[in-house]
Amino acid sequence: MSEKSQARPNVQAIMQEVAPHLAKMTTEVVFGDIWERPGLSKRDRSLIIVAVLTALYRTDQLRGHIGRALDNGVTKDEIAEIITQMAFYGGWPTAVNAAIVAKEVYDSREG
Amino acid sequence: MSEKSQARPNVQAIMQEVAPHLAKMTTEVVFGDIWERPGLSKRDRSLIIVAVLTALYRTDQLRGHIGRALDNGVTKDEIAEIITQMAFYGGWPTAVNAAIVAKEVYDSREG
Amino acid sequence: MSEKSQARPNVQAIMQEVAPHLAKMTTEVVFGDIWERPGLSKRDRSLIIVAVLTALYRTDQLRGHIGRALDNGVTKDEIAEIITQMAFYGGWPTAVNAAIVAKEVYDSREG
Amino acid sequence: MSEKSQARPNVQAIMQEVAPHLAKMTTEVVFGDIWERPGLSKRDRSLIIVAVLTALYRTDQLRGHIGRALDNGVTKDEIAEIITQMAFYGGWPTAVNAAIVAKEVYDSREG
Amino acid sequence: MSEKSQARPNVQAIMQEVAPHLAKMTTEVVFGDIWERPGLSKRDRSLIIVAVLTALYRTDQLRGHIGRALDNGVTKDEIAEIITQMAFYGGWPTAVNAAIVAKEVYDSREG
Amino acid sequence: MSEKSQARPNVQAIMQEVAPHLAKMTTEVVFGDIWERPGLSKRDRSLIIVAVLTALYRTDQLRGHIGRALDNGVTKDEIAEIITQMAFYGGWPTAVNAAIVAKEVYDSREG
Repeated sequence: MSEKSQARPNVQAIMQEVAPHLAKMTTEVVFGDIWERPGLSKRDRSLIIVAVLTALYRTDQLRGHIGRALDNGVTKDEIAEIITQMAFYGGWPTAVNAAIVAKEVYDSREG
Repeated sequence: MSEKSQARPNVQAIMQEVAPHLAKMTTEVVFGDIWERPGLSKRDRSLIIVAVLTALYRTDQLRGHIGRALDNGVTKDEIAEIITQMAFYGGWPTAVNAAIVAKEVYDSREG
Repeated sequence: MSEKSQARPNVQAIMQEVAPHLAKMTTEVVFGDIWERPGLSKRDRSLIIVAVLTALYRTDQLRGHIGRALDNGVTKDEIAEIITQMAFYGGWPTAVNAAIVAKEVYDSREG
Repeated sequence: MSEKSQARPNVQAIMQEVAPHLAKMTTEVVFGDIWERPGLSKRDRSLIIVAVLTALYRTDQLRGHIGRALDNGVTKDEIAEIITQMAFYGGWPTAVNAAIVAKEVYDSREG
Repeated sequence: MSEKSQARPNVQAIMQEVAPHLAKMTTEVVFGDIWERPGLSKRDRSLIIVAVLTALYRTDQLRGHIGRALDNGVTKDEIAEIITQMAFYGGWPTAVNAAIVAKEVYDSREG
Repeated sequence: MSEKSQARPNVQAIMQEVAPHLAKMTTEVVFGDIWERPGLSKRDRSLIIVAVLTALYRTDQLRGHIGRALDNGVTKDEIAEIITQMAFYGGWPTAVNAAIVAKEVYDSREG
């Protein structure tokens, strides 16, 4: 399984220590099964996950998934559209929060 | 503006009566601007909205948007994938709820 | 204590049967203490509660509190403003849902 | 696998039709693995789930899980304590909603 | 348009870079239209927003809006009442979180 | 009242300063009444609260309650089970977040 098909290494290690069955299912079920299913492309799954983590205000998980979305071919302009649409469906605070997270991710990848 | 670019007629009428500025912005900003922006296709926006309304447990609004998603070219198999992925990101209850709503929408369109 | 300072009678009876300590605290703490505190007027508390129940999508409890808001002197025009503002802070689905609930409450009071 | 270890029959059938992979994972992973793990008793898992579905306002799924909790040995007095505690952690509207659901479940089992 | 009628400068700059249409709508629609509508005073809108951001646990956005509320004439005693009422409607954790944010805002304005 | 029956000292002090009635009710009602009620053991109440704060993504309050749960006799293995079950009911991001918080709490208690 490629590195992209896993949780971020340090998060995976923490789960392994604190809740090993959760770590196992993260690898085998979430990334090993759901994300690999052919019914939706990885690009489409990333569109969805960025939107949902924005609207649910899951700030820390959103950070990782914006990076993954870029790796899966979602453009920064598309992320801008997702965040803007979420302002209307999850509320302005969720969109503003996502914009700040996206800025952090973009900056860290340029560094 | 086409009928698809509006809220459902009875909902639009209720908003017009109870909160007319909300009705105006629904037509002009949400459906007239956001949904029409070229940065994401209507099909992609529908993917996202079905996912988000599932995860946020917005049952009644999900009903309308599953129908709109079908109109925008999202297939029932893709909706199944969205709902299944949401089980892992919004929690099982949100996915089960969405499956029941989808069943209602599919049945009503076949009637 | 006046009727306005209690939960709706049938809800109060259900709580009394199913969770009597909750019923007791609803009467003594929520309506007997919090709502009676002089630091905010009942009108201001109703403004807040209608907004919060809209944004949290607590549909059934919103129904009761829209009626209570009218009793506390909040006007229908002010409720329209609250609902419209919530579209931007809790997301459009919460505002649309609240508009439908408000219409039901207004209709039932005119009947 | 016993009947108690599955989703309610009609819900399971709807998932099977609308999102078959979700149905499969509900049976194999959620009820076949998670609920059967020895690290927490079924009674403890039911305590938790009733609390969480109350606080998340997942009304329809709460209905099924209050019945399951009674089957797993949680008493009505314990459900009252859970609901009352949730008033303070998920907010009063979630507790009031859960009390109404519990009343419906209790009545339907006595009928 | 006065400075008070905008998002905080650095947040506005981030939105401008990451999601420029969101930045435009924040200025033109949220602060330029909604907050300026005469149907509710700015003080009343601030009451509502502090309550809603508390109950939705939007910590970072709450920080900015507690400062704005003070600027709009809401007193610290009224903010205490809002936070206390939210303990009962959004749950204790949301109120405790808001108290910590309020303390930070008060301290930073005295510095 | 023992130290365990109160909010963390610094949080209690902030509430006392910013919202004194909230501080009073935290001590007298939440910890003085609800947590002391005999209908559920403190261990059972901690099970529930860790689950609910995980699923609601109340990160900061979860931190304090994981420590309290250990004090109330919940084991680390049971906390692992709770977090894992929450992945399925509140969604994966809530469980991953809780695992990170648990790791911080465990490390700080060993230090």
